[in-house]
Amino acid sequence: MSIQVYWGSGSAFAWRVLLALEVKQLAYESKLIEFSKQEHKTAEFLRLNPRGKVPTLRDGDFVVYESIAILQYLDRKYPQVPLFGTRAEDTGLINQDVCEVLSYIEKPVSQMTRPLFSGELAGKESQVREAAAILHRELQQYDARLARCSWLRGDTLTAGDIVLYPFIPTLLRAAAKPVAGPLNLGFLPFGERYPHMARWSAAIEKLPGYARTYPPHWRQ
Amino acid sequence: MSIQVYWGSGSAFAWRVLLALEVKQLAYESKLIEFSKQEHKTAEFLRLNPRGKVPTLRDGDFVVYESIAILQYLDRKYPQVPLFGTRAEDTGLINQDVCEVLSYIEKPVSQMTRPLFSGELAGKESQVREAAAILHRELQQYDARLARCSWLRGDTLTAGDIVLYPFIPTLLRAAAKPVAGPLNLGFLPFGERYPHMARWSAAIEKLPGYARTYPPHWRQ
Repeated sequence: MSIQVYWGSGSAFAWRVLLALEVKQLAYESKLIEFSKQEHKTAEFLRLNPRGKVPTLRDGDFVVYESIAILQYLDRKYPQVPLFGTRAEDTGLINQDVCEVLSYIEKPVSQMTRPLFSGELAGKESQVREAAAILHRELQQYDARLARCSWLRGDTLTAGDIVLYPFIPTLLRAAAKPVAGPLNLGFLPFGERYPHMARWSAAIEKLPGYARTYPPHWRQ
Repeated sequence: MSIQVYWGSGSAFAWRVLLALEVKQLAYESKLIEFSKQEHKTAEFLRLNPRGKVPTLRDGDFVVYESIAILQYLDRKYPQVPLFGTRAEDTGLINQDVCEVLSYIEKPVSQMTRPLFSGELAGKESQVREAAAILHRELQQYDARLARCSWLRGDTLTAGDIVLYPFIPTLLRAAAKPVAGPLNLGFLPFGERYPHMARWSAAIEKLPGYARTYPPHWRQ
């Protein structure tokens, strides 16, 4: 099998790549890296990616890393089911969606979820609350957009949907931690707060192959 | 003239777009936004970009923002002088270069330069020093790459060069501030510390039209 994907359970960045491969219905070999075993620091893996990060993709002799770069590569190499559009204007706006996730979602998701997942919340309550407030403002915008169409850019799933999606279950998993309860972060029940985003999330979760992308340690 | 670019003097993000337009030799109308006059918060500008940020590009009736999305749009719309390659593998690696700038350069440049430009350095000396140390590690990698080729990806200028470049004069301008002197940040003289990056920067500065992209307030 020519495509190999190195990923980590729960990495939102790696999840994007798995979703893209499933949407494009490309066969791939799953290489699940266990960070707890330092598998991202082995000499073999560092030869593929000197930064020791996932996702990293190998396609025959070719190696590429950084999640968005992998999506761009896959879309150019395997253009069936285009993720970045075919008209220049669509390409621009889909990349705009992608960039907005990187600029406005990634950081507050990390700031909100890390203290909740690690259990080391003490002293970080205001950081978590401020990040949640930023995310609410962004999710309101997404919910309004998704009230008018099935996917972020209309009737067709694009890279913007794939890049945004993994942060939503990550956010909800953190919000459901008992330690988050007293903070009243206001994301749950998600379907009541953000009905259009919830419908959109459910549509992604019905994609063929979605189960293969789901973080294995979340099932435990 | 059909292309209009809204930019701000000294914005590294906007600078990328101006460089791309010059490299592609596209005619454009320069719309210099003055933040001090709140021109990015006018109703007219917010209709183009609800976030009130530069760069924002208008091409006829089409509007796109976020610097990398603008570059992707321009490259698809005006493919002469390709910035993201033509083979899928080149596209992947050029996007990898772009993503690495976003992931590893943007934040430490901001952390190092803002206290130096604002003059509000007190209490932030260790933040500035730590950011400078991160940047030195990255610049060493770039310098080693540029010892072997003219541009980041070989003989041809690509989007990676354009996305990285504006941070270098920004960094050097901050490092040359008198307030930075006692911190001994170690970037100057740049040509001695990073000779290959210095040669690469000079090559960009010799591109036709470069003078039009230079931050006007830096000349004062």
